Amino acid sequence: MAYLNENYLKLQAGYLFPEIARRVREFCEANPDAAKRLIRCGIGDVTEPLPRAAIDAMKHAIDELGRRETFRGYGPEQGYEFLRSTIAQHDYRDHDLEIGADEIFVSDGSKCDCGFILDILGGQNKIAITDPVYPVYVDTNVMAGHTGPARKDGSYEGIVYLPCVAENNFVPEPPSEHVDLVYLCFPNNPTGAVAMREQLARWVEYAKAHDAILLFDAAYEAYITDPKIPHSIFEIPGACECAIEFRSFSKNGGFTGVRCGFTVMSKSLLAQTENGRRLPLHTLWHRRWSTKANSVSYPVQRAAEALYSPEGHTQVRALIDHYLGNAKILRAAATDAGLAVYGGVNAPYVWVKTPDKLTSWQLFDRMLRELNVVVTPGSGFGAKGEGYFRLSAFNSRTDAEEVARRLEKL
Amino acid sequence: MAYLNENYLKLQAGYLFPEIARRVREFCEANPDAAKRLIRCGIGDVTEPLPRAAIDAMKHAIDELGRRETFRGYGPEQGYEFLRSTIAQHDYRDHDLEIGADEIFVSDGSKCDCGFILDILGGQNKIAITDPVYPVYVDTNVMAGHTGPARKDGSYEGIVYLPCVAENNFVPEPPSEHVDLVYLCFPNNPTGAVAMREQLARWVEYAKAHDAILLFDAAYEAYITDPKIPHSIFEIPGACECAIEFRSFSKNGGFTGVRCGFTVMSKSLLAQTENGRRLPLHTLWHRRWSTKANSVSYPVQRAAEALYSPEGHTQVRALIDHYLGNAKILRAAATDAGLAVYGGVNAPYVWVKTPDKLTSWQLFDRMLRELNVVVTPGSGFGAKGEGYFRLSAFNSRTDAEEVARRLEKL
Repeated sequence: MAYLNENYLKLQAGYLFPEIARRVREFCEANPDAAKRLIRCGIGDVTEPLPRAAIDAMKHAIDELGRRETFRGYGPEQGYEFLRSTIAQHDYRDHDLEIGADEIFVSDGSKCDCGFILDILGGQNKIAITDPVYPVYVDTNVMAGHTGPARKDGSYEGIVYLPCVAENNFVPEPPSEHVDLVYLCFPNNPTGAVAMREQLARWVEYAKAHDAILLFDAAYEAYITDPKIPHSIFEIPGACECAIEFRSFSKNGGFTGVRCGFTVMSKSLLAQTENGRRLPLHTLWHRRWSTKANSVSYPVQRAAEALYSPEGHTQVRALIDHYLGNAKILRAAATDAGLAVYGGVNAPYVWVKTPDKLTSWQLFDRMLRELNVVVTPGSGFGAKGEGYFRLSAFNSRTDAEEVARRLEKL
Repeated sequence: MAYLNENYLKLQAGYLFPEIARRVREFCEANPDAAKRLIRCGIGDVTEPLPRAAIDAMKHAIDELGRRETFRGYGPEQGYEFLRSTIAQHDYRDHDLEIGADEIFVSDGSKCDCGFILDILGGQNKIAITDPVYPVYVDTNVMAGHTGPARKDGSYEGIVYLPCVAENNFVPEPPSEHVDLVYLCFPNNPTGAVAMREQLARWVEYAKAHDAILLFDAAYEAYITDPKIPHSIFEIPGACECAIEFRSFSKNGGFTGVRCGFTVMSKSLLAQTENGRRLPLHTLWHRRWSTKANSVSYPVQRAAEALYSPEGHTQVRALIDHYLGNAKILRAAATDAGLAVYGGVNAPYVWVKTPDKLTSWQLFDRMLRELNVVVTPGSGFGAKGEGYFRLSAFNSRTDAEEVARRLEKL
């Protein structure tokens, strides 16, 4: 009989967000009146309309597909040149970072890329992951067989966990032991923590010393307003030789339903074979896309390109300002309610300690039941997230203000 | 130092289509005049405009994303219910095939699905692949480490090849030995062969006897006009317990640049663990999508849904009729040129024996140089494709007729 991939059987319970959706659905069915006043302040999904520039570009592209002379079928598997060069120019070269258009790989989102990247990496790598963390980094490694079984607290044998706690301001220092791959995400999901230049420099130094690779998730870089904070790992000298960067249009352009993101893979990034040959990962990554994908919908790529136009840029800034305004309101309300509050500055997430020593899920259920507000339980992000919850700034102003009012009753 | 996935180093040369693109580019740069009369009759990419129903639906969906009240962010990772239920109804239940909406998994294309499916299958499976074949089935298995190194003829150790040759009309019989997974594609790419009910029934019988799984690629089912030929593997009784079906909107709705497809994974399909537990693959496939993707762009899902409307259906039929008309013209021209010709009926591909004992790439270069026509060399699809070339019906009528005229000179 055909065999299944048994690594999947190690996975714990449901993936976090489907589990939240299930609890909310059950609550709403049982409490139709409360359901009416329910506010979702949990999953990091944008709420505001797509920028006009993206809408216009997408419609224009669809019209092109509607005429034989301008019709396009399969595009380059790594993304269209028009988008790759726009990204390289605006996000990197304009900031004096030497990234070429052919080092940009367009995808249908960062979540996908975080999983796909394991396709080209060896199974022998020792992996370090922050705790708490975006569950996708962990689960994709479990699925790929890079871990042992789960422990009681939900962590997996074989992974080096890097605790992100109030004591280190949720930014971990490099470990003393050797690892080959390190997942880092700043501004952080879920804690809203940001990493300063010196902190990232220590990570690059570690990667150099250990010949390790940093998998740097910069999906939230647009939320950085403090000019001292790096937007890209490539702002640290030498990072091209030891880091892969993931970026997304989900949280700047509001593309969570439109789907587009990209990875930056420098041609100077090497990895080794079992017998010590050092080869560029760029070749493998390019081949992965040629063989396993046909790139992203053409109208979507045009929409992404439009976010870099002057109008697009202004519209994206307005969106970010809106969400950062919500973050400020939520942060203040949680602080006023007497809670210990982190993040929410240069980041769309506010990370809050549960009151009364409640567990994260106890707090989740209580918020759902008493305040009719959906939050994300911190323990869903890892063992060190236990006792915290995440408030998301992705909401209308009205809803953010209402959540702030309800938090007074907590 | 971090390790790379060494299986990638086993891959032969470039992926077929990039290699074709490279040769064409070099020829055109060296021969600008000939380049002007170049006709691409190679890669299976559609050429005609997107159906009006899809355009309208996509634009409407984009307008929804432009208003706060109708904005949508993350959708269900397996695809929206509106699309899953439309597919299940029109492609299956209307044909008395018991497939539920929750057994449909929406993706951004069949090519991706053919690779992704290996995520949930064990590395121990013995794999059978037809020869010639769509290169993606082979290459994704190489990348996943399911093969040994390549042999001189481009085939890989560890794979059971099923020769598709003129003697068996390019439809292989099940092998005498045991295998766990079998890739089948009908109507076939590249040969244009179709499988009759009795032939597929023998494969289902084999799968039952060997507890094997058939990976059935039905991307070209819309080209079947003969009512005796099955469109779906699920038309064979018992196939739900032993087959996964892949379908695409690329070749019916012209979505090669829009990107949408789906898999059908029955809840009754089981696979085993190393110690013999039998579990449904549906659970693993569902989890794979929850963890590794955020589904397909919302406007694209609406466009796919629109292909099933009465107008959409009529427009798709007109596209298919157009391409089948081209196939008929090309088939007749190749036959008149004295060539041995296969396929091109109930399929958009015509499979032709090279004249004068030319190799496939020799014929490719000659067609490019002398006729300024790009074809696909048969050897790019496998060792048994050597000595053949593929003509694609995906073209304008004018170009198909011009290729037909030029073929006289071969």
